[in-house]
Amino acid sequence: MAIFTILGAGMMGSALCVPLADAGHEVRLVGTHLDDEIIASLKGGGVHPTLGLALPPEVRPFFAGELGEAVCGAEAIGIGVSSAGVRWAAEQIGPHARPERPIVMVSKGLHWSGGELRLLPDVLRDALPTAARCAGPVAVAGPCIAGELARRVESCVVLASREPRAAERVAALMCSSYYHVRTSPDLAGTQVCAALKNAYAMGVGLGAGINEKSGGKPGSVAMHNFEAALFAQSVIEMQRLVAVLGGDPQSAAGLPGAGDLNVTCNGGRTARFGRSLGLGLSLAEAVAKMQGATLECLEILEVMRQALPEMERRGAIGPDELPLLRHLGQVALDGAPVRMPFARFFRSAT
Amino acid sequence: MAIFTILGAGMMGSALCVPLADAGHEVRLVGTHLDDEIIASLKGGGVHPTLGLALPPEVRPFFAGELGEAVCGAEAIGIGVSSAGVRWAAEQIGPHARPERPIVMVSKGLHWSGGELRLLPDVLRDALPTAARCAGPVAVAGPCIAGELARRVESCVVLASREPRAAERVAALMCSSYYHVRTSPDLAGTQVCAALKNAYAMGVGLGAGINEKSGGKPGSVAMHNFEAALFAQSVIEMQRLVAVLGGDPQSAAGLPGAGDLNVTCNGGRTARFGRSLGLGLSLAEAVAKMQGATLECLEILEVMRQALPEMERRGAIGPDELPLLRHLGQVALDGAPVRMPFARFFRSAT
Repeated sequence: MAIFTILGAGMMGSALCVPLADAGHEVRLVGTHLDDEIIASLKGGGVHPTLGLALPPEVRPFFAGELGEAVCGAEAIGIGVSSAGVRWAAEQIGPHARPERPIVMVSKGLHWSGGELRLLPDVLRDALPTAARCAGPVAVAGPCIAGELARRVESCVVLASREPRAAERVAALMCSSYYHVRTSPDLAGTQVCAALKNAYAMGVGLGAGINEKSGGKPGSVAMHNFEAALFAQSVIEMQRLVAVLGGDPQSAAGLPGAGDLNVTCNGGRTARFGRSLGLGLSLAEAVAKMQGATLECLEILEVMRQALPEMERRGAIGPDELPLLRHLGQVALDGAPVRMPFARFFRSAT
Repeated sequence: MAIFTILGAGMMGSALCVPLADAGHEVRLVGTHLDDEIIASLKGGGVHPTLGLALPPEVRPFFAGELGEAVCGAEAIGIGVSSAGVRWAAEQIGPHARPERPIVMVSKGLHWSGGELRLLPDVLRDALPTAARCAGPVAVAGPCIAGELARRVESCVVLASREPRAAERVAALMCSSYYHVRTSPDLAGTQVCAALKNAYAMGVGLGAGINEKSGGKPGSVAMHNFEAALFAQSVIEMQRLVAVLGGDPQSAAGLPGAGDLNVTCNGGRTARFGRSLGLGLSLAEAVAKMQGATLECLEILEVMRQALPEMERRGAIGPDELPLLRHLGQVALDGAPVRMPFARFFRSAT
């Protein structure tokens, strides 16, 4: 049994404490300065306010200022901050990073540096002391709604890293009877899928809104044919982007791609946001309806809008490729009407 | 504009009449002897009883005995009978089959001959006069709920054939503003996916039932992690079976596989049947709840149960492969409790 310290007490960082505690570890959950209310509630013996449940007693909560104490003796450090907070997290854990202390990220995504698309784990890695880089980072991907993991629903995830031994060590620590952990060397593939699936789930979500707007009701006969065509095209476009970034396209057909897209369509706020756009709400109205929830779909659409012209200039991607992603950017960011370019779908694959 | 004759007035054969009529064709819908009630209703100007709507006026209904008249001058013949009726259909259209008259099948699936798994279009082909074999058959696959197609929901499908020119000709006839048709040479891949997706959608549907049985409610937090893991494993197993039967595994990642599985999970009776099993109903109880609806999932699970031992004996597939499909057979056919073999999932792919 080990000590496992997690920085970031949001939904996923906190949910991850549950299988870790059930696996017998001492879990220390450290809030960021944005999580003070959550940590105060947990210290007072209350529920986790956003998860809506109490964490197991083996989980000890810490305020941001108590990180040094919380990390003392830890076998591994988890990072559960938002993607915008990854550099800040690197600064915080930098002094505590050790080659033999793997770093696990539930934060995930793509970052546009102005010149290239970078994987979030690589952004973290570059911000860590050089000696600590063989500690990973190890990135968690795959279909996992935090609220379900915290309620011990059977969940399968992938741990990907450029350091296979770090991934294996973390996998051995993290697996439990209901948290099924696989390792993969395909960091690029898993991160591209983790980021892009949000944009595509928003797209699939449009169908529910368009159906309702045209007088249809949710049910067996709705706009599922439309949604399924978008789902398939999403997998194909993720495969293409994974290949462009040097990953394994098979990741997009498996747990990190098709699997995570499936769960995001079924359980996520992203699909609800897509439904609002499909209903004809403006971007501002649709965002307002989400009451401040982070909309990763808009973040990644903005990142890809910046990245695509440069990728095309370099010949990495053709102007006719990714027609769905491009149209979703126009719909969400420019308020364009939904006119799916179906004639441009399924060109390169059945 | 052409004459298009369809044999079989079930949901999908009849729904296909709508885009064909909208594309300007004269469509002749011929019932089998099981469809007399449907044809009588249509001849009387009524709605299609199972689709619940009137067909366009360009669609002319015919009783089974009127096939000769209905096929006169037809540019193409469609087959919309159940998979069990394919040989009967071949006998009926045999005298009218011509090399220059392509045959389109919406019937799909796999047949176990006792020695090998055969594609349903090949079963039909072998039952046709030799001279007519270059007419296809052309098989329709991909995510398409009949009730949605009949209501003109945007739908993307794949036409696959061993005769590429027949597929191209049919595609040119069939496409309309909302019925988006692609061709593919991968008959094996599309047919394996068309058949297997029913078993896998039943599996994904288990999640809803297990969730309700354990006191959970449908919603954002349910058993979506479980379902998504099964969804991803389904795509991977379909890829494997497609490869074994000589098809292109990419079909399983695209419209015929991931796309059709998605729509079957969202719109189909198959997922509802899976939910009943997840709730703990016996096979007989779950079947009774479906009120006589054809359960393709049970048919294909039975086919695969017969086929797998022989395929293993030949070394085509290993005993550790397809763990999800095997477990679904045990659950549905043997009444075994649901115990997903997650540890055996995602072995060969991320």
